[in-house]
Amino acid sequence: MTPIPSPADKFSFGLWTVGYNGTDPFGGPTRPALDVVHVVERLAELGAWGLTFHDDDLFPFGSSEQERRGQVDRLQRALAETGLVVPMVTTNLFSAPVFKDGGFTSNDRSVRRFALRKVIRQIDLAAELGAETLVMWGGREGAEYDHGKDIRAALARYREAVNLLAQYVVDQRYALRFAIEPKPNEPRGDILLPTVGHALAFIDTLERPELFGVNPEFGHEQMTGLNFVAAIQQALEAGKLFHIDLNGQRGIKYDQDLVFGHADLYQAFALVDLLEFGGPDGGRAYTGPRHFDYKPSRTEDETGVWDSARANMQNYLLLRERAAAFRADPEVQEAMAQAKVDELRVPTLNPGEGYADLLADETAWERFDAGAHFGARGYGFVRLQQLATLHLLGAR
Amino acid sequence: MTPIPSPADKFSFGLWTVGYNGTDPFGGPTRPALDVVHVVERLAELGAWGLTFHDDDLFPFGSSEQERRGQVDRLQRALAETGLVVPMVTTNLFSAPVFKDGGFTSNDRSVRRFALRKVIRQIDLAAELGAETLVMWGGREGAEYDHGKDIRAALARYREAVNLLAQYVVDQRYALRFAIEPKPNEPRGDILLPTVGHALAFIDTLERPELFGVNPEFGHEQMTGLNFVAAIQQALEAGKLFHIDLNGQRGIKYDQDLVFGHADLYQAFALVDLLEFGGPDGGRAYTGPRHFDYKPSRTEDETGVWDSARANMQNYLLLRERAAAFRADPEVQEAMAQAKVDELRVPTLNPGEGYADLLADETAWERFDAGAHFGARGYGFVRLQQLATLHLLGAR
Amino acid sequence: MTPIPSPADKFSFGLWTVGYNGTDPFGGPTRPALDVVHVVERLAELGAWGLTFHDDDLFPFGSSEQERRGQVDRLQRALAETGLVVPMVTTNLFSAPVFKDGGFTSNDRSVRRFALRKVIRQIDLAAELGAETLVMWGGREGAEYDHGKDIRAALARYREAVNLLAQYVVDQRYALRFAIEPKPNEPRGDILLPTVGHALAFIDTLERPELFGVNPEFGHEQMTGLNFVAAIQQALEAGKLFHIDLNGQRGIKYDQDLVFGHADLYQAFALVDLLEFGGPDGGRAYTGPRHFDYKPSRTEDETGVWDSARANMQNYLLLRERAAAFRADPEVQEAMAQAKVDELRVPTLNPGEGYADLLADETAWERFDAGAHFGARGYGFVRLQQLATLHLLGAR
Amino acid sequence: MTPIPSPADKFSFGLWTVGYNGTDPFGGPTRPALDVVHVVERLAELGAWGLTFHDDDLFPFGSSEQERRGQVDRLQRALAETGLVVPMVTTNLFSAPVFKDGGFTSNDRSVRRFALRKVIRQIDLAAELGAETLVMWGGREGAEYDHGKDIRAALARYREAVNLLAQYVVDQRYALRFAIEPKPNEPRGDILLPTVGHALAFIDTLERPELFGVNPEFGHEQMTGLNFVAAIQQALEAGKLFHIDLNGQRGIKYDQDLVFGHADLYQAFALVDLLEFGGPDGGRAYTGPRHFDYKPSRTEDETGVWDSARANMQNYLLLRERAAAFRADPEVQEAMAQAKVDELRVPTLNPGEGYADLLADETAWERFDAGAHFGARGYGFVRLQQLATLHLLGAR
Repeated sequence: MTPIPSPADKFSFGLWTVGYNGTDPFGGPTRPALDVVHVVERLAELGAWGLTFHDDDLFPFGSSEQERRGQVDRLQRALAETGLVVPMVTTNLFSAPVFKDGGFTSNDRSVRRFALRKVIRQIDLAAELGAETLVMWGGREGAEYDHGKDIRAALARYREAVNLLAQYVVDQRYALRFAIEPKPNEPRGDILLPTVGHALAFIDTLERPELFGVNPEFGHEQMTGLNFVAAIQQALEAGKLFHIDLNGQRGIKYDQDLVFGHADLYQAFALVDLLEFGGPDGGRAYTGPRHFDYKPSRTEDETGVWDSARANMQNYLLLRERAAAFRADPEVQEAMAQAKVDELRVPTLNPGEGYADLLADETAWERFDAGAHFGARGYGFVRLQQLATLHLLGAR
Repeated sequence: MTPIPSPADKFSFGLWTVGYNGTDPFGGPTRPALDVVHVVERLAELGAWGLTFHDDDLFPFGSSEQERRGQVDRLQRALAETGLVVPMVTTNLFSAPVFKDGGFTSNDRSVRRFALRKVIRQIDLAAELGAETLVMWGGREGAEYDHGKDIRAALARYREAVNLLAQYVVDQRYALRFAIEPKPNEPRGDILLPTVGHALAFIDTLERPELFGVNPEFGHEQMTGLNFVAAIQQALEAGKLFHIDLNGQRGIKYDQDLVFGHADLYQAFALVDLLEFGGPDGGRAYTGPRHFDYKPSRTEDETGVWDSARANMQNYLLLRERAAAFRADPEVQEAMAQAKVDELRVPTLNPGEGYADLLADETAWERFDAGAHFGARGYGFVRLQQLATLHLLGAR
Repeated sequence: MTPIPSPADKFSFGLWTVGYNGTDPFGGPTRPALDVVHVVERLAELGAWGLTFHDDDLFPFGSSEQERRGQVDRLQRALAETGLVVPMVTTNLFSAPVFKDGGFTSNDRSVRRFALRKVIRQIDLAAELGAETLVMWGGREGAEYDHGKDIRAALARYREAVNLLAQYVVDQRYALRFAIEPKPNEPRGDILLPTVGHALAFIDTLERPELFGVNPEFGHEQMTGLNFVAAIQQALEAGKLFHIDLNGQRGIKYDQDLVFGHADLYQAFALVDLLEFGGPDGGRAYTGPRHFDYKPSRTEDETGVWDSARANMQNYLLLRERAAAFRADPEVQEAMAQAKVDELRVPTLNPGEGYADLLADETAWERFDAGAHFGARGYGFVRLQQLATLHLLGAR
Repeated sequence: MTPIPSPADKFSFGLWTVGYNGTDPFGGPTRPALDVVHVVERLAELGAWGLTFHDDDLFPFGSSEQERRGQVDRLQRALAETGLVVPMVTTNLFSAPVFKDGGFTSNDRSVRRFALRKVIRQIDLAAELGAETLVMWGGREGAEYDHGKDIRAALARYREAVNLLAQYVVDQRYALRFAIEPKPNEPRGDILLPTVGHALAFIDTLERPELFGVNPEFGHEQMTGLNFVAAIQQALEAGKLFHIDLNGQRGIKYDQDLVFGHADLYQAFALVDLLEFGGPDGGRAYTGPRHFDYKPSRTEDETGVWDSARANMQNYLLLRERAAAFRADPEVQEAMAQAKVDELRVPTLNPGEGYADLLADETAWERFDAGAHFGARGYGFVRLQQLATLHLLGAR
């Protein structure tokens, strides 16, 4: 009855997600780390399609080149045996003490240079593994206080860094694009490029904006109380949804990284509806990886880890079914019409109309009956929301 | 397929809810006020059981005694004709300019005396109409700044006020109890007794605490990011859940008063499960009114008003069905056992055991294997949450 | 001892700010409206420089052309007599029932056309009065639910609207620029272009981006928990800070519109420091109006209105003094140096350096001592923050 | 010019505060742990009065009795040499894997018994060291999901646990009281007894409520957006402020533990004013330890640790000076009178007056002029707040 995931669904997981050992600010590990080969095998069994990782997930910070190569080779053999792919990699510029004030925007210039080298090394690995996307989450790029960080300078340094990386990728003829992942805070008090909007605006200032998009994370946007699905739509409209991180967050608090679908179900429903059926002719609006960036709760042992991995995919697929039924329901279509949802897609101006024509149109102003909207012409938004509720609950 | 409400479900609505005319901080009414008789008739048709109101909802602030009586009589006739009851009334101590700094805790003593008189008048009406509960929402009891309001004095004045009212009710032999409704902010910057916890603590300081309980509102508690269902459980454990306000709120922001079930579905699901099946032997944990304190969106005309009223009840009943199926599912029961949910109901101490026995029990400390909890003894909370998800989505 | 405002400080106030009558979601007016001529006279006496207004502030929605002209003429005479200017005007597309689903992005196309006409009329008035900026706050452009509003279509319609208005302004040769004012929510559940970031990204998609900037409001950004001063720096770096709204907000809750300086003093201090001394050579980083968009508390009578207006300006000027002293303090300069604040302004790459050079620099990677950052090389950010605290408190 | 702390100020620090090594959810330590003897010596030099600690801070979880005794002895020698005292200790029931679902309220009964033993052991140590207060922060007592934790049962187990501990303390004739420390979330999704209000209400249900009070933490209450100073006043009014944790938090987000005074200055100012001058005759309202529970930022080395420790005390003392001047200012006193702050301390009823007298008083209702509050009788709260601002900024 519940749908079964398959690689065609393009579900991917971070190595650091199922591999999370339970450490949090008030306690150490509650379970051992998982070996990457084991992770690849189990994910493949569960129907996942891809694995992603930070450099430091696979080989510890400061590994020798031999250690690094050994781990990469082990990963590649596991990929070959299971068919799993590595669609995305990312660089850890936040865990080691050297990055305590950030990587690309550390006040210490030598740290910034070191960070660039670390990312270039990871770009080479991305290319080697056939990854299409390099995600950049700048978790330490930020500040706790106002006067210790010149934000304009930080933006300039961030720009300098990613322009250099883009040049490198172009020159190496790597088929790699960059996806910036916004987050408002934690671990810094305030993080640079805190929302999808700020990241989109920043991208427009780059030398090669076409190589840069966003990797919005469900929970990160909700940590500000913003509407995640609205942010995704602005990213889609700008052609900038390069990757997406799915998980769950219960409101404005610390970063929870719950299973996708275990928190705000309405946003999850609207998101899946958008990604799967919001494209041209009701097709996919986004065809890239459905990437889960979550943490199995600290209370769980390894059984719970895999239960939680499965739950992410199951919820996505269930919501896809609910969304399909919602869209096919004639009463929904009728309510959509009453709410004039389609009418917003019609340009406000007639074809070829300019302001002069509009100023000459008395129906737009002189003879417009603004008062007719009092006590009438309701949009029926509540009815439409109730139909969505019934579909979400499987009650239609 | 969707369940139909009936008076046995004990659904009640505030007159100010369906009667809300759309006014908000940035705009005036978008629809006319509804007459009380019309409201009573329509609610009865929809299957509701009760109507509630503030004095000023039924007869405007400053009405003559004749106007007041006229409106009360009209209401009583409508109740008699429809069978609707008035299980609760409340007093408006927040709209008129005289209450700009509060009612019971206005810095102006004459205002406090006026407020007491207004409430006593409404208590008499409550008794006349057979209401069992007087709700007290102190929306203006609070402050924007720190130095203009002595909070300890405000608590003392609030206590003085409600002690007087309790004495009045006892002496009049009214079968009326008081329910304090907490809210953290809006319209004041900070409101006195901001959460269920603060109100429970305050009640313990009253002369007749047995007459006082809480009226928690779903959205109010969520305006602080607190877990509403946990608050309800603390109120139930204290025997203080006298009334409840159901609605919807999308996170920490202005007071939204959405339809119940149109926002946080997990909290709504857990709440209905608790109220309906959380009592002894799986019966009701709370038998009072299921009161909707919501606002039909400003975008709606009267059709939308009644659609939204119906949606509140429909969602409650659907969630009741889901909760019943969840509890009856053997796999859920098995997961509950793994998670040791029942084991928390077993006292930590053996019958008759004191600290001396515990100190003598080497299995509790000297021979206790704390290390066995690393990498094992997972609670399976994520699996249980996934089963809840599947039931909520109607997928089992 | 406390500084006195003068027109050179460029302080401006919205007519709707000092004119606010105390209405909020739970109560009607607590004081009468103020006549515009009286407002102009009093503001001039207090040392303000400018007055701003929405069309509906000056002449009620639906006024005849004669009524409108009468009010405009009264305003102009008062301006002439006092020397006050009108540096900005804005259009009310949110109060009347016709705008219940928005103006530029209402699902109802005829409403969108009406909205455009209303703004064009106000643009003409802006030009007549010599205003340099037209602010656009789209408070009703948004939704409460996910399925009733196609956000991509809404963005397209918003773009269509403002492109038309820009063409009009260009053709009329008006010296007018547009400033978009973001807000996350209230009165809609979620508002389009919710933060400075989202607005900046949107502007980049317009036909004439050079005519568009942002009008960030202190409290609006804080309603999401985001850092306002960081947002202002991103806007400044993009050359898009066209106007600014100053007020106060105590955290994530309803829109409070407190006096500037009556809430988050650190953010206020950092903001004034940035605006006044964050430009080239320590000069102003922003030379436009210092506009107060606040509300005198509902508890106040007219005396409180003017006390609050004065407090806004007084706090700005005091913080300017504190910031000047902070910057001039040698210990602050020394702490800045330790924190390497200036070093972030130095490009990460050497002049002419590309990635090949960086890859060849062994000090950047092979010989870089990452471990040296453990237990050493602290940034001293806390010390710097303490120096800021001492200056803010007037204790140095 | 800036005040110097001395033991008479009763400043105490947690060993885990200055000893924090920089670990957070996204990175490991950035500096080495500090030895307890070194901490005691440095704190004494800085003018602190007390040191507090969790058992696991001083001797690692699982230490042998010999290791434990060795560390206790080292601590005692350092205390003797410096004069520092240990006014409070607390028990770590949250870091070790065994506590992954809590201590007193773990679903696993054997864990609950182990937790009780661990606390009893720490109570004995508290008594040995002369501590007056045992703080209980139940950081892991909570849940991420709704169905895995029976909150009513959790409250019952928490009560069972602390009743047992109270009996133990009474029987041992220890001069020790308990202080419950609320927190809304982190590390659990929702924590039991999330606010001061919930804790106060819980205390009223205990067998020996007189032995229990609260230990409110500045930042914890602000993580819900609640007003900390209002909560302290409710605790004081109930006689339950047994201990207090001072620090800083910038709004609703992860637990920041900034230096006291480095975040919300208005709340800090109002708090110090209350604690120091809010008691009878303007004396101290609270005479216990001024305990700092903060974390030196991860960006700092040991120099920054001690700078931050000093800053906490310096800010407290500065705010005490500002508060004294505020209270002594005749204009403040005049504004307080206009705002009728004192009038709230006057009972609403006349001496001996009951409801019958009130009902007979026509000035309270029949002849009360509610309309006189429109446009007049402003409270001047904004003026009072501005006077507070000027004093806080050192500008009067």
